[in-house]
Amino acid sequence: MNILRINMKEGSIRQEMLPPKLMFYGNRGLIAKIMAEEVAPDCEPLGRYNKLIIANGPLAIASISCSGRVSAGAKSPLTGGIKEANSGGIMGYRLASLGIRALIIEDKPKQDVLFILHIGKKGAQLIDASEYKMMRIHALTKKLFQRFGPNCAISCIGPAGEMLMSAASVANTDMDGNPSRFSARGGLGAVMGSKGLKAIVVEDYKKIKPPIRNEERYKKALKQYVEEIRSAYQTSVGYTLYGTAGIIPTISEIGAMPSYGFRQGSFENADKISGERLRETILERGGEGNATHACMPGCLVRCSNIFPDQDGKQVVASLEYETLSMCGSNLGLTSLDDIAELNYLCNDYGLDTIEIGATIGVYMDLGLAEFGDAEIAKKLVREIGTGTLLGKILGEGAAITARIFKSQRAPVVKGQSIAAHEPRALKGMSIIYATSPMGADHTAGVTTRVRLDQLDPYIWLEYARDLQVKIAAFDTLGLCMFITTAGPKIPDLVVEMLNGIYGTDHGPDFIASLGKDVIWTEKEFNAKAGLSAAHDKMPEFMLEEPFPPHNAVSDIPKQHYQKFWEPSYWRP
Amino acid sequence: MNILRINMKEGSIRQEMLPPKLMFYGNRGLIAKIMAEEVAPDCEPLGRYNKLIIANGPLAIASISCSGRVSAGAKSPLTGGIKEANSGGIMGYRLASLGIRALIIEDKPKQDVLFILHIGKKGAQLIDASEYKMMRIHALTKKLFQRFGPNCAISCIGPAGEMLMSAASVANTDMDGNPSRFSARGGLGAVMGSKGLKAIVVEDYKKIKPPIRNEERYKKALKQYVEEIRSAYQTSVGYTLYGTAGIIPTISEIGAMPSYGFRQGSFENADKISGERLRETILERGGEGNATHACMPGCLVRCSNIFPDQDGKQVVASLEYETLSMCGSNLGLTSLDDIAELNYLCNDYGLDTIEIGATIGVYMDLGLAEFGDAEIAKKLVREIGTGTLLGKILGEGAAITARIFKSQRAPVVKGQSIAAHEPRALKGMSIIYATSPMGADHTAGVTTRVRLDQLDPYIWLEYARDLQVKIAAFDTLGLCMFITTAGPKIPDLVVEMLNGIYGTDHGPDFIASLGKDVIWTEKEFNAKAGLSAAHDKMPEFMLEEPFPPHNAVSDIPKQHYQKFWEPSYWRP
Repeated sequence: MNILRINMKEGSIRQEMLPPKLMFYGNRGLIAKIMAEEVAPDCEPLGRYNKLIIANGPLAIASISCSGRVSAGAKSPLTGGIKEANSGGIMGYRLASLGIRALIIEDKPKQDVLFILHIGKKGAQLIDASEYKMMRIHALTKKLFQRFGPNCAISCIGPAGEMLMSAASVANTDMDGNPSRFSARGGLGAVMGSKGLKAIVVEDYKKIKPPIRNEERYKKALKQYVEEIRSAYQTSVGYTLYGTAGIIPTISEIGAMPSYGFRQGSFENADKISGERLRETILERGGEGNATHACMPGCLVRCSNIFPDQDGKQVVASLEYETLSMCGSNLGLTSLDDIAELNYLCNDYGLDTIEIGATIGVYMDLGLAEFGDAEIAKKLVREIGTGTLLGKILGEGAAITARIFKSQRAPVVKGQSIAAHEPRALKGMSIIYATSPMGADHTAGVTTRVRLDQLDPYIWLEYARDLQVKIAAFDTLGLCMFITTAGPKIPDLVVEMLNGIYGTDHGPDFIASLGKDVIWTEKEFNAKAGLSAAHDKMPEFMLEEPFPPHNAVSDIPKQHYQKFWEPSYWRP
Repeated sequence: MNILRINMKEGSIRQEMLPPKLMFYGNRGLIAKIMAEEVAPDCEPLGRYNKLIIANGPLAIASISCSGRVSAGAKSPLTGGIKEANSGGIMGYRLASLGIRALIIEDKPKQDVLFILHIGKKGAQLIDASEYKMMRIHALTKKLFQRFGPNCAISCIGPAGEMLMSAASVANTDMDGNPSRFSARGGLGAVMGSKGLKAIVVEDYKKIKPPIRNEERYKKALKQYVEEIRSAYQTSVGYTLYGTAGIIPTISEIGAMPSYGFRQGSFENADKISGERLRETILERGGEGNATHACMPGCLVRCSNIFPDQDGKQVVASLEYETLSMCGSNLGLTSLDDIAELNYLCNDYGLDTIEIGATIGVYMDLGLAEFGDAEIAKKLVREIGTGTLLGKILGEGAAITARIFKSQRAPVVKGQSIAAHEPRALKGMSIIYATSPMGADHTAGVTTRVRLDQLDPYIWLEYARDLQVKIAAFDTLGLCMFITTAGPKIPDLVVEMLNGIYGTDHGPDFIASLGKDVIWTEKEFNAKAGLSAAHDKMPEFMLEEPFPPHNAVSDIPKQHYQKFWEPSYWRP
């Protein structure tokens, strides 16, 4: 596999071999390794020394179900630490089909110019993109499909990314050409904007055959892997019937669904925005139900949906739990249509719905707007997307908004907003949010469905740590985190598929050692970037403010956060 | 000596003995010791766990010239680290005369209320201050003098502090009742605001006699100390004739005077705002010349001035170099009257002129306002002081302003703006700004007048370190840093005066070991607060952008910043 290195100052593109020692590193882990090797951790996130890395994983080349995630990575303008955010869509598999494991986008143009990186039959080149300046995501991708053909894979930024906002995302197109899959978190869209890169367009012109070294071993493992996914409840029924929104009745009942600016954990209108209601609504409007849509080719889980408006016209694909909570319950909104429109606006401007939901929540909590007022919420997103003075503030996310408007209730860790699994009510999430080198990402591991006492602060350390390690390994292999719910055999089967493809003989400890290596590499990058143990913590207001209905506070002993990093675990 | 502990939540005031081991710790050093002992370094600066400490030093009780500085200290909302900012005025001596070494203001009121801490004959009490809400500094102090008598010492905050802005200062009154002496840097006014404390008013009702243990030893040292100050050029002529503004021709000539948003170091209109021009202007208008005014009772240096308008009416007392540069040359302003008015406005709202000058410089540099437009500059300060949306941004200082408006040219270290001694042209200042636990303070040590090659990046480490240590010790003894320019005998004489007063027998190494202890304590606090070696650096743009006229860049080897902290120096 190869790496394409694109220097935005020189306008040069160079192909390199992926170093053999990184053969099994893709996505998050490859980003960590490249960042550790090449990027000064104390650099300015939007300066020339930061690098934007786009990467897929070692299984993508074989087009295995759930293995084609595409990651964006860089030093984050939001957290000041290393950041990886992955997404579905077709870019992961597409790059793999061309033999590309990663793009490294470095330096920045001398002037204020804008480019498209185009990869096609004639090679890779930077094309002037000034005609697309400040174009929104939906209009932009439409234009790009017209120009470069409907089969392109596109990763791109909207106005928020061009305006270098810390809440800016990177959009990726799916199989239907919808720019609906987002590397949303950490402001990676702003890093892309800082490189003067509006879009990456990759044509469908080559299919590299995967060099499968041990066909029998591979096929045996693959077969069982497929069977496991097809037979596990969550990956064949749970996610498949209700999507991520399926969690809503449960999470609201256990009091962990952020509502009204993180003021309460049960949302009295949860039934109006639940997975069931979502499914009904879609069916009523002639859609295909809830979770019938695959975000990546060949996915067996198909947890996504296409949400139509009242006339049956697509609004977003798909409407997910994090958005339903952060842009829904957290803002006191009860209409799926309102939330879908907010989602559409965020997508169109290229914004992270989690960060924006948390930010508007802070703004409403200060009394600067009313909870439940959907029109105000939409107006605020438009202000962000068009860069008004207020929009510039909100576009920097919840922490900066709280700083400017003087709230002591910023629901953030390492400058990034907490996702829609409230840590006061979910002690495992406290540990994950506090310790993840990524800031408060639910994608670092979700403990919400785990059958342990969610309110016991003493029992979660080991579980949360092992889970993070496993997820980091899956993130490094380009796998969707949802297949970790397909049963305990999955990790071994993944290793077996790798062994089959690459002719190796990794044992069952491969996943854990890979995950540990990745997280430790990230942690060391962060330490040099200035993020230390002092940043592994919950927001101060959560230590004291009881969170209804359980009236729980953040009460994980500080030593647990410290013990998380005991070297004997990470470097055994 | 005593400590008064004021709990703003309970409304309680408790008197405690200063622990004997802290007998020689005042001001900066006492703040460091109390913070290290009592404040969780990872607390929210504007939350209830931070403490605001007001302190004087161990010489103040004897009313020695230049020894009555008053310090404010806390965890800074601007830097996220420990902060001390000292000032002249009468509060330092006043508290000493009552036997008070420090006030510790802790916790915060449950509701949004405002208090005055009043210390008078009947003891100390918290008085409702709602009638003074959002009152500006000049009107406020006038009211307070009317109410509590003209001889009070007052420390107070303006609207900026009440609005919790990171550029908010604490004002202190001088001998004439002018609220013109500022603990300006680091946003300590916001910490005071967060405590619900509008003002501290201390009546003149008691004079504790200094318990001088060895009268002869003390008097001998004092006499020589006075002689040294009276005979040294800088403290008897330099500062006394032209004040701090006396440096302008030199610093502009050597190319280290920030001009036009840190774009150049020689200001073509330096002569229009120089110390000489200042002196002439004041005399023309019937004032007393430039440096004829003492900021503290009994000061022999008298480096301050009273700047009148064209009708001879006082505008500010005094107009200082840092303001003349940061709110003058850095904004392209050439009229002393304009700069004085900007200064007046900053004082009146309770804002740091250095941070505000740097901030407006960033704003102008982005093309959002014109350099040289004094009316716009004043309008921007009014926006800050009245808390408009734009004002809320600018009031957070240069780093946040750069983040919101997307400048990569924030002249900041640890979130705080660099003062008016440009580090690219002054390599010693690079080291001081980068390493000081306080962020980029010139008050941590000024190397501008030192006769070494200012542009040689390799020769400054030891000098800058030793200087910081000496200044930290002087800051801990409540001494004005200017007397370090009164010749090499001063440190020993200071130790001798202490020995005379306290009956001790410290040797000449006392100053160095005191300074080292203080800085190391601060550094350790900062490390636990999350400020590490990664934060000891110059802004990235200064590494590459040549600074005319020398076209120097920041080129101190990284190892120098690291070597600065070699433990063998600090803990010999």
